[in-house]
Amino acid sequence: MTETAQAVEETLDRLLPSGGGPEARVFEAMRYACLGGGKRLRPFLVMAGAELFGVPRARALRAAAAVELVHCYSLVHDDLPAMDDDELRRGRPTTHIEYDEATAVLAGDGLLTLAFEVLADPATHDEADVRCRLVTALAQASGARGMVGGQMYDLAAEDRALDLDQISRLQDMKTGQLFNFSCEAGAILGGASKKEHDALLAYSRSLGLAFQIADDLLDFEGSEDEVGKKVGKDADAGKATFVSILGAEEARNKAKALVDKAVSHLEFYCEKADLLRDVARFVIERRT
Amino acid sequence: MTETAQAVEETLDRLLPSGGGPEARVFEAMRYACLGGGKRLRPFLVMAGAELFGVPRARALRAAAAVELVHCYSLVHDDLPAMDDDELRRGRPTTHIEYDEATAVLAGDGLLTLAFEVLADPATHDEADVRCRLVTALAQASGARGMVGGQMYDLAAEDRALDLDQISRLQDMKTGQLFNFSCEAGAILGGASKKEHDALLAYSRSLGLAFQIADDLLDFEGSEDEVGKKVGKDADAGKATFVSILGAEEARNKAKALVDKAVSHLEFYCEKADLLRDVARFVIERRT
Repeated sequence: MTETAQAVEETLDRLLPSGGGPEARVFEAMRYACLGGGKRLRPFLVMAGAELFGVPRARALRAAAAVELVHCYSLVHDDLPAMDDDELRRGRPTTHIEYDEATAVLAGDGLLTLAFEVLADPATHDEADVRCRLVTALAQASGARGMVGGQMYDLAAEDRALDLDQISRLQDMKTGQLFNFSCEAGAILGGASKKEHDALLAYSRSLGLAFQIADDLLDFEGSEDEVGKKVGKDADAGKATFVSILGAEEARNKAKALVDKAVSHLEFYCEKADLLRDVARFVIERRT
Repeated sequence: MTETAQAVEETLDRLLPSGGGPEARVFEAMRYACLGGGKRLRPFLVMAGAELFGVPRARALRAAAAVELVHCYSLVHDDLPAMDDDELRRGRPTTHIEYDEATAVLAGDGLLTLAFEVLADPATHDEADVRCRLVTALAQASGARGMVGGQMYDLAAEDRALDLDQISRLQDMKTGQLFNFSCEAGAILGGASKKEHDALLAYSRSLGLAFQIADDLLDFEGSEDEVGKKVGKDADAGKATFVSILGAEEARNKAKALVDKAVSHLEFYCEKADLLRDVARFVIERRT
């Protein structure tokens, strides 16, 4: 994954704005929020999915960068004082702490906008129809019925006891749909058949849920030094999580079972999908 | 313009999300920010431009709605306490006052995302290449080198004395480029020739500047009741504006001259462009 992370970093560096002028502060904040950190899990899913269909690497990297731009914008806005009020992210001050709140709002806006500019560019695919499908899928995954709605749900849920179905739905909106897009992007770029596309989506649905359970476990068991952000927040806020409902042991078993299930959807692809199998295992073994 | 405003309102109403669930609060805030107010100047420019090329009305309305979604998102975010800290907009409480800051941030994010989803949809044009060109043009106009950068410039300029060239550049980024997109959208949808496209852009550049000068004059001379938002803010903040540099009389003359110049670029279109001529005059005669 290191080589891919490096290639994604270089692609982001090239796509992000730079330069002087009084507006340069927002360029810098956008770069700060995106470069030099993060697991690059979503870009990795894009790259691994694209490899199944022989998508040229330069194109896949652009789709991978677009997903990461959206992911990073969501972190910048979610960390704001009015939202989750976090001061630490990836072991560094969050964007509104390093800059200021106004700059952080604008940097997030700029990142989100850039993601669509990147996808619509002919360098992403020579067929405009493919580019439009990517724009549509990313907008749906990250908009009011996807990630944005999920964050609203999460804020609304702070004072409420959610059951397992409700948490699953919340997490599908908040993180699952962008996961799905990451897995789908390669299929869209590579002109996959419906059967191929559906297998990737089934993989993604199980993986996304496993990822979120692992995240809850890290918040419950991890240390701030390891994780690079404040931990124990959910318990402090009295928030229902997979761990608070299932208990740590059952949550861990459920995550493992979901990873097995995710991997089972890849049989169809034989050894071509080994990268996706590896990333599935990484998702529950990671310590950050 | 009333009939167009009504059709835009109906289109926005249809495109904006609605429904129940814990995430519905962000749907409501998005609707609050977009519906039932505003001059709809940008949508009107889209519609008038599209008419020049015989673009079917239903398609033009989608592009018009997309511009208005971006415009409304920018108002929601710019009004936030960390930004311009405004409590009144279009004669009503701003979105973060009516809801809360977190919801306002998310509503803005949702509106921006929806704009790209609307443009990429086949209902906007049957050629995907045209849709991609719209996505690209809107992203460039509203991103870090356009509107978002302009707002950063504006915040950075609060403690600085700007000269006329600097204010012109700031305003071109902050409002001019979205104006240009509004005028261009019809040309893109209608497959205009380069000459036709360039004439519209030249019109837009003069008109955008006239619009901004008129805005500064309203802030300087208007009443809160008329304008529907707080006035006198620029002077209170010691901010350089076209009015503070040129004086009200010269600013008014300059705006008039710019409108004449804008209209002169339309000769080429003969009487087909009468709507665009009307809107140019409206821009400097408006009281809100």
